Amino acid sequence: MSQTCAPPAPLYLDCDTGVDDALALAYLLASPEIDLVGVGTVHGNVDAPQGATNTLDLLALAGRDDVPVAVGAHDPLAGSYDGGVPHVHGRNGVGDVVLPASGRSPAAGTAVDLLLRLSHEHAGRLRVVAVGPLTNLALALRADPTLTKRVVDVTVMGGAALHPGNVTPVGEANIANDPEAAAEVLSADWDVTLVPLDVTMAHLLEETDRKTLLEAGTTLAPWLGEVLDLYFGFHVPTFGRRCSALHDPLAAAVAVGGVTPTLAPRVPVVVDTTDGPGRGQTVCDLRGRYAGYPDVPGARTRVVLATDAPLTPQLLERLLTL
Amino acid sequence: MSQTCAPPAPLYLDCDTGVDDALALAYLLASPEIDLVGVGTVHGNVDAPQGATNTLDLLALAGRDDVPVAVGAHDPLAGSYDGGVPHVHGRNGVGDVVLPASGRSPAAGTAVDLLLRLSHEHAGRLRVVAVGPLTNLALALRADPTLTKRVVDVTVMGGAALHPGNVTPVGEANIANDPEAAAEVLSADWDVTLVPLDVTMAHLLEETDRKTLLEAGTTLAPWLGEVLDLYFGFHVPTFGRRCSALHDPLAAAVAVGGVTPTLAPRVPVVVDTTDGPGRGQTVCDLRGRYAGYPDVPGARTRVVLATDAPLTPQLLERLLTL
Repeated sequence: MSQTCAPPAPLYLDCDTGVDDALALAYLLASPEIDLVGVGTVHGNVDAPQGATNTLDLLALAGRDDVPVAVGAHDPLAGSYDGGVPHVHGRNGVGDVVLPASGRSPAAGTAVDLLLRLSHEHAGRLRVVAVGPLTNLALALRADPTLTKRVVDVTVMGGAALHPGNVTPVGEANIANDPEAAAEVLSADWDVTLVPLDVTMAHLLEETDRKTLLEAGTTLAPWLGEVLDLYFGFHVPTFGRRCSALHDPLAAAVAVGGVTPTLAPRVPVVVDTTDGPGRGQTVCDLRGRYAGYPDVPGARTRVVLATDAPLTPQLLERLLTL
Repeated sequence: MSQTCAPPAPLYLDCDTGVDDALALAYLLASPEIDLVGVGTVHGNVDAPQGATNTLDLLALAGRDDVPVAVGAHDPLAGSYDGGVPHVHGRNGVGDVVLPASGRSPAAGTAVDLLLRLSHEHAGRLRVVAVGPLTNLALALRADPTLTKRVVDVTVMGGAALHPGNVTPVGEANIANDPEAAAEVLSADWDVTLVPLDVTMAHLLEETDRKTLLEAGTTLAPWLGEVLDLYFGFHVPTFGRRCSALHDPLAAAVAVGGVTPTLAPRVPVVVDTTDGPGRGQTVCDLRGRYAGYPDVPGARTRVVLATDAPLTPQLLERLLTL
């Protein structure tokens, strides 16, 4: 059976838009495999209301004012929003580019309200992709633990398994920005696919790709090229050149099947919620390394360690349709 | 200048003998680059007195009753000795093989006394290799912080950087058996070379190598072949065949220059001493990965991530002389 025969799966995106969140959002909008039925925003790269504004503006540029956007948690479960990362994503989250304002307001209610409502509307079919801190998902689980029964699966961009972290030696930003929430989400009764730095750092967008976006002649893609400018500069100390890791788009691509994990063992994953040097680490039990990483019985989290193909060509192809 | 022109460097070995400790001890005895001037034992694979008995017996088989052996710490700095790992190293630490008894007693005084005495006798020249928990070294530093001024360098088998642990998902046995001691040793004012699982798991002794030892026709080597039997069995679930990782011998070889690190950045290393899931982890700051792991200014610990050559041929060559 060809995939195109199946109706597109309803998908809820939770994000902190964010430059690479913007790419993930656009990728999902251009993906026939899924139907983006709602977006919730969360503190992280920017504050949650700014993330919603960015999302609304991007959706408008894509002609998708039909997609509801709800503002979610302003603060992590413990502590408070740290002010974001203006040197990475710009003060406004989209590389300090001023996008045309959508004129649309966020939906009434919180991201948790939206997620729970969609989980009933699409019970047994809804898929969830989370590319920011997991606060909204944790709060939704607290509000209604039966959420897990109505969601097909959860794909999370986050963590570092056998790879250095990006905000501490072992901590990746999405998880480290709310370790308590991540711990609750990863221990809940549902299947999670974790897309960590181990793989996202291996998929890069280059300056020639950005130029392709800038010259696309479409509505949204050139704006994405502009938005990427500052983010490309941030990656120079890491990679020695202007480029961008494709963190959030890779999680989106894994979720929709655009990229297929070739090594993704189901193993116990515990989030470090101490105040020690490991705070925010996704402690993945990968001791099966020399046995080919067999699944560990009872484990519900797949940790993606390798994928079948580079995301970049497909990402570009899809973004150029917008 | 050929290395053979230099007088052999005095070297103190701290160990919890232990099957692979026995190999490291023998390798050092057969290494012209160094002069083994003393051995201290510590809790770990077995209790410290048993480790000393094993060491004395192995030294006797090598005709080296001149090397002083002192019993060190019975317990880690926090908590108490956990009973060792009889399924790995045998109840007696040497694979339940009954070695010919040396008849010699340990030196008077503790391993700390021995290390401090040697550090004065060989001030400015003494090298230290530690292949067990770091309790003795930490206690020596507490007793005399100026120890660091008299020791050339410290090579430690321990930790896991971008590799799974072996006693927890992120914890390696030597460090996890006394994280507090490791934290003190790795933050002291001396140069430490950390030889973690990242590299030790890549150097294996195979059944054909063990047979070579068994048939050596020398005094010590055939006993080492016997001692390895149980340890080879322990590795079957990991590697799918009888073999052995060369943890402790690799640290010894790195220390004497028999194997040269080709990638060993000096980076901040913090030991997780929390009670969380990361307890005992060596949190190494390897965020310079994509820039070729430049040394981090001020860092005193080299983390060995790659070596130039397989240890096994050289290890065998040296062991066959004993």
